[in-house]
Amino acid sequence: MAEIKVMKDILGENDAVAAENQKLFTEKGIYVLNLMGSPGSGKTSILEKTMEKLKDKLRMAVVEGDLFTSKDADRIEKHHVPVIQINTVGGCHLDAKMVQNVLPRLDLDNLDLLIVENVGNLVCPAEFAVGEDEKGVILSITEGDDKPMKYPLMFKEASVVVLNKVDILPYCNFDLKGAEEDIDTLNPGVKIIEASCTKDTGVDAWCEWLQDRVAAKKQLAAK
Amino acid sequence: MAEIKVMKDILGENDAVAAENQKLFTEKGIYVLNLMGSPGSGKTSILEKTMEKLKDKLRMAVVEGDLFTSKDADRIEKHHVPVIQINTVGGCHLDAKMVQNVLPRLDLDNLDLLIVENVGNLVCPAEFAVGEDEKGVILSITEGDDKPMKYPLMFKEASVVVLNKVDILPYCNFDLKGAEEDIDTLNPGVKIIEASCTKDTGVDAWCEWLQDRVAAKKQLAAK
Repeated sequence: MAEIKVMKDILGENDAVAAENQKLFTEKGIYVLNLMGSPGSGKTSILEKTMEKLKDKLRMAVVEGDLFTSKDADRIEKHHVPVIQINTVGGCHLDAKMVQNVLPRLDLDNLDLLIVENVGNLVCPAEFAVGEDEKGVILSITEGDDKPMKYPLMFKEASVVVLNKVDILPYCNFDLKGAEEDIDTLNPGVKIIEASCTKDTGVDAWCEWLQDRVAAKKQLAAK
Repeated sequence: MAEIKVMKDILGENDAVAAENQKLFTEKGIYVLNLMGSPGSGKTSILEKTMEKLKDKLRMAVVEGDLFTSKDADRIEKHHVPVIQINTVGGCHLDAKMVQNVLPRLDLDNLDLLIVENVGNLVCPAEFAVGEDEKGVILSITEGDDKPMKYPLMFKEASVVVLNKVDILPYCNFDLKGAEEDIDTLNPGVKIIEASCTKDTGVDAWCEWLQDRVAAKKQLAAK
């Protein structure tokens, strides 16, 4: 019972800091996406494609969450977009305080879109808001079509779900229609995008979705 | 700081229960493997193959850890091997108490091998012993060759690492030699097995490794 109480306290504290972050982002008119998914689902690959396509259209920055290395941040930095690495030193998720701590290193007055790439983990990150407007989940089709129902929280909380690596569907036993129905059952009407970074499939749809969200946030912030 | 203290207390309590489980398993001469890996790495598929090949040679049972569903346990049950489902109700790992609670439902006097399939998560399960003799990690090559260095704890703690789904190597950008070198750097001399459940590659090597470990535990328990 003590463990449950402690967990509630931690989540309560986290929510308070997340609300502070959210307030700041809204004042600045920045749309923030908390991007989650399993290790190897393709989060960084999608971001690299996003940089290529959007960096001249939007002012973007990325916060990279990793346990130890800066491998992902190094990949983002090549695209000349501001990127900040947070190492959780073994921690399984980013929390609002970690993100708050690095915000002074970003030029928030000149930013439209901030993407927070969370630690690769289909479970824990869903429980910790970082101040985002919305959450996104990337699921690689190589992970299996049973995953939405087995790891429902993240899919329930997401505003967009990307089914990634569809180029290797012919070599995997993945029921695309069934998985999409499961996701829609968990989260009716959620935006679902089928994508392949290597074949550049669905990446335009993803970028359009992001641009729409950024525009909506600007409108909201201007009110 | 409070959070760190609490974490240490939780881990200390868990280790105490894990030691109780381990003592019982050793009294009964049962070899226990804590099987970990990302969602969709192929843990259940490897287990299904293991049942097919070993269920007439060894007395086996499986404990299945999942957040909510019994999808994996249903797959194991078809092979007529005793299987117990633990639902963590959103929890990101199994702990020693959860496993202890279900042990009365197993016939421990007639068991050689118990495999505990942990929640799909490359981070948290590595921190919580359940009373196992050894840990195993399954990494799907579709997750990317950077994963051992990005998620080092699990690879450091494992006694066996299975690189799974090698049948789709031609369609993935995965440096097999580089990944194996990284794993060996993290954990020198660790047993690495290249496997494909769909093509039945490496499954015999995996089953031989398991049989060796079971035999070694029997010898140890007899002393």
